[in-house]
Amino acid sequence: MIKPFLDDNFLLQTETAQNLYHEHAAKLPIIDYHCHLDPKMVAENHKFSSITELWLGGDHYKWRGMRTNGVAEKYITGDASDWEKFEKWAETLPYTFRNPLFHWTQLELKTAFGITKILKPETAREIYEECNDKILHDPSYRARGLMEKYNVEIVCTTDDPVDDLRYHKQYASEKTFTRMIPAWRPDKAIAVENPSAFRDYIERLSDVSGVNISTFQDVIDALQKRHDYFHTNGCRLSDHGMDEFYAEDYTESEINNIFNKVYGGQTLTEIECRKYRSCIFLKMAEMDYESGWAQQFHYGPMRNNNEKMFRLIGPDTGFDSIGQAITARSMAKFFSRLALKDKLTKTIIYNLDPSDNEMVATMIGNFQDDTCPGKMQWGSGWWFMDQKRGMKNQMNTLSVLGLLSRFVGMLTDSRSFLSYPRHEYFRRTLCNLLGNDVENGELPYSEIVQIEKMVEDISYYNAKNYFNF
Amino acid sequence: MIKPFLDDNFLLQTETAQNLYHEHAAKLPIIDYHCHLDPKMVAENHKFSSITELWLGGDHYKWRGMRTNGVAEKYITGDASDWEKFEKWAETLPYTFRNPLFHWTQLELKTAFGITKILKPETAREIYEECNDKILHDPSYRARGLMEKYNVEIVCTTDDPVDDLRYHKQYASEKTFTRMIPAWRPDKAIAVENPSAFRDYIERLSDVSGVNISTFQDVIDALQKRHDYFHTNGCRLSDHGMDEFYAEDYTESEINNIFNKVYGGQTLTEIECRKYRSCIFLKMAEMDYESGWAQQFHYGPMRNNNEKMFRLIGPDTGFDSIGQAITARSMAKFFSRLALKDKLTKTIIYNLDPSDNEMVATMIGNFQDDTCPGKMQWGSGWWFMDQKRGMKNQMNTLSVLGLLSRFVGMLTDSRSFLSYPRHEYFRRTLCNLLGNDVENGELPYSEIVQIEKMVEDISYYNAKNYFNF
Amino acid sequence: MIKPFLDDNFLLQTETAQNLYHEHAAKLPIIDYHCHLDPKMVAENHKFSSITELWLGGDHYKWRGMRTNGVAEKYITGDASDWEKFEKWAETLPYTFRNPLFHWTQLELKTAFGITKILKPETAREIYEECNDKILHDPSYRARGLMEKYNVEIVCTTDDPVDDLRYHKQYASEKTFTRMIPAWRPDKAIAVENPSAFRDYIERLSDVSGVNISTFQDVIDALQKRHDYFHTNGCRLSDHGMDEFYAEDYTESEINNIFNKVYGGQTLTEIECRKYRSCIFLKMAEMDYESGWAQQFHYGPMRNNNEKMFRLIGPDTGFDSIGQAITARSMAKFFSRLALKDKLTKTIIYNLDPSDNEMVATMIGNFQDDTCPGKMQWGSGWWFMDQKRGMKNQMNTLSVLGLLSRFVGMLTDSRSFLSYPRHEYFRRTLCNLLGNDVENGELPYSEIVQIEKMVEDISYYNAKNYFNF
Repeated sequence: MIKPFLDDNFLLQTETAQNLYHEHAAKLPIIDYHCHLDPKMVAENHKFSSITELWLGGDHYKWRGMRTNGVAEKYITGDASDWEKFEKWAETLPYTFRNPLFHWTQLELKTAFGITKILKPETAREIYEECNDKILHDPSYRARGLMEKYNVEIVCTTDDPVDDLRYHKQYASEKTFTRMIPAWRPDKAIAVENPSAFRDYIERLSDVSGVNISTFQDVIDALQKRHDYFHTNGCRLSDHGMDEFYAEDYTESEINNIFNKVYGGQTLTEIECRKYRSCIFLKMAEMDYESGWAQQFHYGPMRNNNEKMFRLIGPDTGFDSIGQAITARSMAKFFSRLALKDKLTKTIIYNLDPSDNEMVATMIGNFQDDTCPGKMQWGSGWWFMDQKRGMKNQMNTLSVLGLLSRFVGMLTDSRSFLSYPRHEYFRRTLCNLLGNDVENGELPYSEIVQIEKMVEDISYYNAKNYFNF
Repeated sequence: MIKPFLDDNFLLQTETAQNLYHEHAAKLPIIDYHCHLDPKMVAENHKFSSITELWLGGDHYKWRGMRTNGVAEKYITGDASDWEKFEKWAETLPYTFRNPLFHWTQLELKTAFGITKILKPETAREIYEECNDKILHDPSYRARGLMEKYNVEIVCTTDDPVDDLRYHKQYASEKTFTRMIPAWRPDKAIAVENPSAFRDYIERLSDVSGVNISTFQDVIDALQKRHDYFHTNGCRLSDHGMDEFYAEDYTESEINNIFNKVYGGQTLTEIECRKYRSCIFLKMAEMDYESGWAQQFHYGPMRNNNEKMFRLIGPDTGFDSIGQAITARSMAKFFSRLALKDKLTKTIIYNLDPSDNEMVATMIGNFQDDTCPGKMQWGSGWWFMDQKRGMKNQMNTLSVLGLLSRFVGMLTDSRSFLSYPRHEYFRRTLCNLLGNDVENGELPYSEIVQIEKMVEDISYYNAKNYFNF
Repeated sequence: MIKPFLDDNFLLQTETAQNLYHEHAAKLPIIDYHCHLDPKMVAENHKFSSITELWLGGDHYKWRGMRTNGVAEKYITGDASDWEKFEKWAETLPYTFRNPLFHWTQLELKTAFGITKILKPETAREIYEECNDKILHDPSYRARGLMEKYNVEIVCTTDDPVDDLRYHKQYASEKTFTRMIPAWRPDKAIAVENPSAFRDYIERLSDVSGVNISTFQDVIDALQKRHDYFHTNGCRLSDHGMDEFYAEDYTESEINNIFNKVYGGQTLTEIECRKYRSCIFLKMAEMDYESGWAQQFHYGPMRNNNEKMFRLIGPDTGFDSIGQAITARSMAKFFSRLALKDKLTKTIIYNLDPSDNEMVATMIGNFQDDTCPGKMQWGSGWWFMDQKRGMKNQMNTLSVLGLLSRFVGMLTDSRSFLSYPRHEYFRRTLCNLLGNDVENGELPYSEIVQIEKMVEDISYYNAKNYFNF
């Protein structure tokens, strides 16, 4: 008996899984605690010009899929028309079987547009027109409508400390279905490898904070002011993108000298960069602790690997991949320093390379305490790992090396207003794992109420309780 | 049809698996060739004061689980009462679903106490009292009784070269169900990174061996005397805890100078430490060869990562995690040096990071020879990997990269007298893998006798033949 | 219901999988685009002296299996008789259950000889005689006959630039069932770590190319001449064995000096070796681009780890294992340099350590373009990973991180004329994955025609289109 594709019981192989999903997971709102949505589009309730803008405008996953399928750059990031780009995507989709792009695409068509046809050259025009008709004429396909359609209670955007948060403030002043909260992402304050870009950034930081910056302490003071400003505007969460963890030994005077050197336009040595990062990461982690925020660390990518394409179309265009970070020792030392000062706040670590899974899953166990259950979290499968196989591996590994029941669960980490079905996908995958365990006799059916609670907690309540938004 | 939890066919999904387990694996005694039981407790037939002592007294797996669940240290390693600690554990257990702690706990309750209730706050008091009643009044719940209950034929403890083995000798003089054999664990003789602790240790070694130590050769002579003493007391097995393998080039005179330096109280450089370790590991491996012992290497942990908790409650309290060791080249060089001298004895390598699984599984193939089948062994899933997923991965990987049939199988590596059900768990997992293969047509049912032999060998006979206890 | 062992539906668990395999995959010829067959044996249509020569003559997988089973070297690479060696192999086979050796052996017996008995001591003599009878008296068991029996359309051998390709030319002049094409494997031109062997090689290169070599540019000119010669003889594919990728910065004058130094007999420093390799790999990749060839990189082994056995019986005798290469950054830089010059040709990367799987699977995505679909390929499970678990992992990972549908599929990488059933094994594994997805509702049955095309493409057409042989 062949199970129908993408029916109500998609990914749910047992009756127990089906009950867990439909009666418990599916009914709960979404807390999307980390994403890259553009706050302006939310504030202005952006109206999309076509399904091409909505789907292909900034989605480097799809771009990579198209390049792998031999599609020319003109139809990906170039000047081809919306229809031409969509057509190339439709030609690519039949070659994406077994890739998450296929599931995401069909799930998005189904849940947002009610379309169950398979996208392919033969159906492309029809689907293109049906989607565009809704996007152009039905207000529920504007930015806010999509968030409401998917029952999104909260989204956290990703914002630079120098951002004035004007869109967050504007949006917060209205009565809305979804709350939008800023998150603190100070990557540029750490990017000392490029002196001139760093100087420009520090000058902007000085401007927006009103702090006259001439020493390292001034940088910290300015960041603290912005941190307070973000807090006032609802922020409860920081996020850091990094290739690895840094925990060099350093002295305050070394850091002052390093700051003066780079601010003066000189290129730092590798060890100077490492010391600087070691210091400023620690200072900012202390700010997060003092404000009761949670902190997130996304580590392990290797970025902009194709210099030719970087020169042509710039960063974040689909030329990043998984790096090889030997960082366990620094990671432990970093958290240990904070714990020793009693300044280790709630923390989520996301690794990109799944070879680090067990290392990270056991690392968090070193720093758990009675602040709250699951204080230290191992983040859900991230970026390349954000797919069924990655999610399953993360949950199975977390299960045996930590407490799955305390997991804060799924986030989209997405730039798209159509990515919310990934929460559904995650919840189905979770329910399927638990359903199999129950039906195999590896979890007791007598405790089904506890298992239902576990599903609800991981889908929604754990995040709600963890973040104090 | 939902399979009942923890019934007779727990983890056994096919009829073939059930037959393999019940008719073959389950009937065999246990050879627990590596554990951390306290010989004094065996010799004195320790009477436990409560299930709390038995379960929570030294089990850092449970401690980590409780911390992750937000339990305060007072109830873990602090001064709370036995009942309070047990209660916190019972509150934690419903949050451990899918973690091996849940399965171990319920298996231990069932097999030791005949209790099939699920431990949770509602059942905590009742289970606490039922267990304590048995522990306090039934002599079969004392140390030796538990070993007999689980049909333990042999246990190997883990002992420092300076240990006088008095409890082993006392116990050996009695007629007992289980044999207890010492194992040689000379970690402190290698620990040159701390000069004063090293000096103290060398002085103790000098005392117990009667060798006046002033040169490196004296250290070797003293260790050889203790090695002989251990051999006389039945020891046939060494064990080494290490972060990585060492195989630096060195000269005898360099080693003499390094020894003099550290023994004189000076801190060694990193490369001096490495050279010293490279030399002494080799010397001790030669001793093992000369005595016909097997040697074990447990490598890859990163220890005491939470400095705050280390200062409060010391080492081995649940703040260790998986490190990232780049050690393949040193490992090969170490074994190659021994092979070149024809002094490579039977060897078991345990890696902590499962990312090294394939590397280690192929490494052992470089050094197999006709000394005995399976001379070089890849140890069973260790520490964090000692759970169903870890066991399965280890056995599946060993199967395709080596000969599973020659595997010496399971050990508890435990400090607890209640850990023996892990052998049952392992055997069920093994039988299930083989049962699935037979029922899927990947192994021939016509050769079932060979498969039954394989189960019996891995459960018992391979270890029995390998170790010559 | 126990599935019979090795029947027509071996490894095919669903009806969909069975249809995909029997109606689509099984009917297609084999393009074995990378192997280590001896061209002389093909050209001369080698007649084997026994099943021992055919099976055990050069198969270090079987040698490792026998050593692990405790067989003495005499019966492996030593002077025992053919029968004695075969007998030892037959004694070992019952201990190989779950190892690919067991499946390969029984598949080869079945598909080449029509023997379905299980090889073991009781059947050894009978099987030995039945095989030998065919090998000695039936011309279809000679080299070419075996290739025809397995429907091999094309094989690519592995040849040194100095090879005169005489056997390829001789064979190409005949009308044959299978085409044999040389492949360019210039490992020795890169092996600067041994000055005297390097000098010998360069002198041979000078002789065969007719280029008087005294500078690095002369080396390149000589290699280019040989590259052209290979091209004229049908070569369209290069292959490189390497421990890691190299992408150091260097100047032309540095390389000249390094060449002069090593050619003059001096040992190079580690960084000099790295620079030399970085340069020559790049130059040769440019040659491949200019000729429209595909290039293959096999990286990650650690070779000749048992010095004792290396001295006794030399390289490639089963003492290699998986290394730990930290090479992502160099790999990216190497390909980026080529892309920047618009000289990156079609490329297949094979990693040995499965811990690198996700890194490599995402790396190729950085360099895809519209030259052709799937320009950058992640090679099928290689060497130790060339087994069901390895194949499944590679295909499942490629599926989620790239486009499985564009995969060029299986190759034997073998020295044996009996290894072709590995293609069958691969195709069955592929069909089973897809069949499960369809029956689980994860791929739409409505698109079965596309899925059938995918099976045919990965089995045959993708390789056919990719290589332009």
